[in-house]
Amino acid sequence: MTQHSIHVEQDSAQTQMPIPALEVGRLLISCPDAPGIVAAVAQFLYSQGANILQSDQHSTDNGRGRFYMRVEFQAEELSQRFATLQDTFVPVAQRFDMEWKMTLAGIKKRFAVFVSKEDHCLRELLWAWQTGDLWGQPVMVLSNHPDAKELVEPLGIPFHHIPVTSDTKPEAEDRQLRLLENQVDFLILARYMQIVTPWFLSHYPLQVINIHHSFLPAFIGRNPYARAYDRGVKLIGATAHYVTPQLDEGPIIEQDVHRVDHRYGVEDLKRLGRQIERTVLVRAVRWHLEDRILVHGNKTIVFPS
Amino acid sequence: MTQHSIHVEQDSAQTQMPIPALEVGRLLISCPDAPGIVAAVAQFLYSQGANILQSDQHSTDNGRGRFYMRVEFQAEELSQRFATLQDTFVPVAQRFDMEWKMTLAGIKKRFAVFVSKEDHCLRELLWAWQTGDLWGQPVMVLSNHPDAKELVEPLGIPFHHIPVTSDTKPEAEDRQLRLLENQVDFLILARYMQIVTPWFLSHYPLQVINIHHSFLPAFIGRNPYARAYDRGVKLIGATAHYVTPQLDEGPIIEQDVHRVDHRYGVEDLKRLGRQIERTVLVRAVRWHLEDRILVHGNKTIVFPS
Amino acid sequence: MTQHSIHVEQDSAQTQMPIPALEVGRLLISCPDAPGIVAAVAQFLYSQGANILQSDQHSTDNGRGRFYMRVEFQAEELSQRFATLQDTFVPVAQRFDMEWKMTLAGIKKRFAVFVSKEDHCLRELLWAWQTGDLWGQPVMVLSNHPDAKELVEPLGIPFHHIPVTSDTKPEAEDRQLRLLENQVDFLILARYMQIVTPWFLSHYPLQVINIHHSFLPAFIGRNPYARAYDRGVKLIGATAHYVTPQLDEGPIIEQDVHRVDHRYGVEDLKRLGRQIERTVLVRAVRWHLEDRILVHGNKTIVFPS
Amino acid sequence: MTQHSIHVEQDSAQTQMPIPALEVGRLLISCPDAPGIVAAVAQFLYSQGANILQSDQHSTDNGRGRFYMRVEFQAEELSQRFATLQDTFVPVAQRFDMEWKMTLAGIKKRFAVFVSKEDHCLRELLWAWQTGDLWGQPVMVLSNHPDAKELVEPLGIPFHHIPVTSDTKPEAEDRQLRLLENQVDFLILARYMQIVTPWFLSHYPLQVINIHHSFLPAFIGRNPYARAYDRGVKLIGATAHYVTPQLDEGPIIEQDVHRVDHRYGVEDLKRLGRQIERTVLVRAVRWHLEDRILVHGNKTIVFPS
Repeated sequence: MTQHSIHVEQDSAQTQMPIPALEVGRLLISCPDAPGIVAAVAQFLYSQGANILQSDQHSTDNGRGRFYMRVEFQAEELSQRFATLQDTFVPVAQRFDMEWKMTLAGIKKRFAVFVSKEDHCLRELLWAWQTGDLWGQPVMVLSNHPDAKELVEPLGIPFHHIPVTSDTKPEAEDRQLRLLENQVDFLILARYMQIVTPWFLSHYPLQVINIHHSFLPAFIGRNPYARAYDRGVKLIGATAHYVTPQLDEGPIIEQDVHRVDHRYGVEDLKRLGRQIERTVLVRAVRWHLEDRILVHGNKTIVFPS
Repeated sequence: MTQHSIHVEQDSAQTQMPIPALEVGRLLISCPDAPGIVAAVAQFLYSQGANILQSDQHSTDNGRGRFYMRVEFQAEELSQRFATLQDTFVPVAQRFDMEWKMTLAGIKKRFAVFVSKEDHCLRELLWAWQTGDLWGQPVMVLSNHPDAKELVEPLGIPFHHIPVTSDTKPEAEDRQLRLLENQVDFLILARYMQIVTPWFLSHYPLQVINIHHSFLPAFIGRNPYARAYDRGVKLIGATAHYVTPQLDEGPIIEQDVHRVDHRYGVEDLKRLGRQIERTVLVRAVRWHLEDRILVHGNKTIVFPS
Repeated sequence: MTQHSIHVEQDSAQTQMPIPALEVGRLLISCPDAPGIVAAVAQFLYSQGANILQSDQHSTDNGRGRFYMRVEFQAEELSQRFATLQDTFVPVAQRFDMEWKMTLAGIKKRFAVFVSKEDHCLRELLWAWQTGDLWGQPVMVLSNHPDAKELVEPLGIPFHHIPVTSDTKPEAEDRQLRLLENQVDFLILARYMQIVTPWFLSHYPLQVINIHHSFLPAFIGRNPYARAYDRGVKLIGATAHYVTPQLDEGPIIEQDVHRVDHRYGVEDLKRLGRQIERTVLVRAVRWHLEDRILVHGNKTIVFPS
Repeated sequence: MTQHSIHVEQDSAQTQMPIPALEVGRLLISCPDAPGIVAAVAQFLYSQGANILQSDQHSTDNGRGRFYMRVEFQAEELSQRFATLQDTFVPVAQRFDMEWKMTLAGIKKRFAVFVSKEDHCLRELLWAWQTGDLWGQPVMVLSNHPDAKELVEPLGIPFHHIPVTSDTKPEAEDRQLRLLENQVDFLILARYMQIVTPWFLSHYPLQVINIHHSFLPAFIGRNPYARAYDRGVKLIGATAHYVTPQLDEGPIIEQDVHRVDHRYGVEDLKRLGRQIERTVLVRAVRWHLEDRILVHGNKTIVFPS
């Protein structure tokens, strides 16, 4: 509770950033577009004594496609009556054939971080968590190398070294899944240099966030920075996305780039790439933690702050 | 009508960009935040047979401040029953103490462009208008120099040369106001190098858009590019804003920057500055034309596309 | 000569932007790296009474690879003794096995623009030429469509409509080449939607500049904007490059991007894409006109201002 | 030596990033522009058996102003004969009235970090130092608060807590200067919230790097983020600069910005601001460590990689 109080104090009344308090809830909706959805949702919240703090919505195909909505609301004693509130919403959801979820902002999402040897993304995540920039709970770090152990354990976060070879991948993934079971809400691949199987992913659909370098144009395969250097790209960047069985082709959450020129050697490009990866990944994870991302087909709808 | 049909065809069904057709309307609202606003607005539109295409809202102070909303909706024969629709909304508006306006997307806003000698912003505006990127109607160009006449008149737009000196400014502004009266909805200062008086502005409150260069830090006064060069700034930019009696301190609509280094001379900085001004101004004007900007105190809330 | 004088006046003494006057020359060098190159070049220019205005160089592989240099220098009556100066440089060049060229900044490069239906890049080029931002001479516009004729001819630039089908491409390219012969120094493909054959390109090696959209990741093939929309990219951009027989894989000259989100429909992405293409292409062409680009393998070394 | 070997290995032959080895030297020159400078410098290095790895130069006023040059060169046993090499250069320097310095890339610059309560910039500096991204040596951290002690001391870096009030500032600065004497080459103000006196600065002219937030426009004085929020800025950024007695008006080394909109509350702006400050400061410090910055009046000439 102590940390929670501190966090509330930190978010002054002047910010729109919702106070992640027990009394704030979020409602996420996806359904076929139709007249009356917003009216029904707003009427439901009003009738339940909930005040809308922020509401974002998006319609595809000019109102003839699918409708997406994220509402952040405030209500007294929300946590006590949360189950009831959800039950009460069921008829509204059924009327419009909604996929939906309701969350309590005060409950931290739990996540595991997968890492290999390069630890810059892991370090940035831990830092953002320590400073309160990420309102979530890292519950374990898994790695196919032992290197990150000394970084992670002093922070009180369990570290599991699970080597992976092509032969041992099935057992390794099985061991990972048993460790994770009921312990985490989502996973972060923070420069984890192993391909995760569709079977593994099927346990966490659209709940695995990955970060990778991005260039204009793309350089698929080995040594992308050396090839970007050889081609003389003028921009390098990074992409955070949800992992699907198509690997790097899942829905994009966030991207950023930085200018470079011929003076940047391969090592310079890599150093800059690490910097962009850190920033982009933490931004994506924060949006995920705050339920700001909805997925439509292979694209995301992000309502950022 | 021909141009209108073309424009509709251009906006394919895949875009969210609202079809600026006669049957699309926009409702803009600003009021003290309170429970039930969204429900009431949504219910009103639903009861009138209007389908919400896009809805954006913003609350200040976590729901304890002011509430802003922009709704784009579609309804049959909207233009015929537009007056009735507005009348019907009055009780809803009164209940929540709303400032509001309703517009028809199919009706082009009329504007005048003020320009001095540098014509790059004027040219860009005319270009964007010709290609349909700006859905509005330039009804006249006013200048304190004769230079732009040849550019403007062949396009069928009236050009008025009104010289301005410190002595003649009152008469000049008077003449400008008489030319503009009932002819325009808003004004664009496209590198118009004359200070506009508060008296003039009082006729077009928050309806005058200006563009000016921006630096980190600011260089107020004469020869800003030379001084930015002397200081060795690494970024130069431009700001589009609404003009208030405090001149360049009105609500910011849009800003952008570009990287520079010591190799950029004063003329290089100016050339780049012109490029950024063109882009930023047209973006701001487009948002204004599409009713995407709300003003809260001295800041804007922009719901862009 | 009049225009020339104006141009000189425009470039004030405070800028590094070289005065494109008859007395300014540029020397471009590429050779195996070795000790003494810079000393030899600097000594040569000094001995010829030439003052170095700007000098940029680049070495690959930490001095064990290839050496690139661009020197801008000023000398009296340079144009009269230009042939002699080049002859005098030959021994220096031979000593270091240089590829090199010397140009007079005051002589405008001549170029042809190829365009199809979309004319935004052509318009921007013509605009930049008219305002003096591009110090070059457009000598003709070639198109497989008649649309741009009205835009081009009033400016006194010849327009040639040469339709192209898969059957007629050989004759069309033959006709293009005959029109261009001895008339132009380089070509610009300004949204020219025809594939240019290796045979055609062999007449203008590394002298054809193309512009195309760029995304993270790339979307190769048809309807790239629709596919970028479907994938939910967060950045769209454009790349200007030299055309090689590998088409879009030639050396990159310049790139830029702009942020987008789910609210941008396909038409919005296209509009923004056009804006970026215009800016990026003109920047690349300016650098080419000012001899600021050297090519190393499949990459460019750009010394911009 | 071990760390050095590792560092060399890290910089592969493909990069231009100079190997910071004992045999690499850097020569920085500033002098009135004149014919023959480059020839003389290049001839000098050639005659000394030094191979130029990278050379950058800049002339102001089209060759009629001041000339700046940075040369990175490689020579055998450079450290042993470094004093002799400098002596040999004196006549060349005198001939052109040069201000100059020669450095050995293999010798790490020593620096102290000043910090107050906010530690994000300090953390980023320490991180970049640990990963080898900053080739320098932090020799102490000074703070007017005790907070950073636990962060700094476990890394083997001395931490000194020196409280400062307006009454005790003279003694505090005196104590700081005695601690620093002969220990450091330059200072970094990493969110140090005390004004440093001109007297203190006079001991480290152009050797104190500061970081501060930047906005378009600037918000001078208290609570800049709250005021930027109230004004609705669309870009926030940070500036790293050398500190002069005019405080935040010293020569700018690096700047960057990030887009924001009305959804960003004051705390969101601050969080993003911290992110930009970290990145910009480390970039500036790296350039300083690698002798990539020359100062001309109140502006910097940066030759980055």
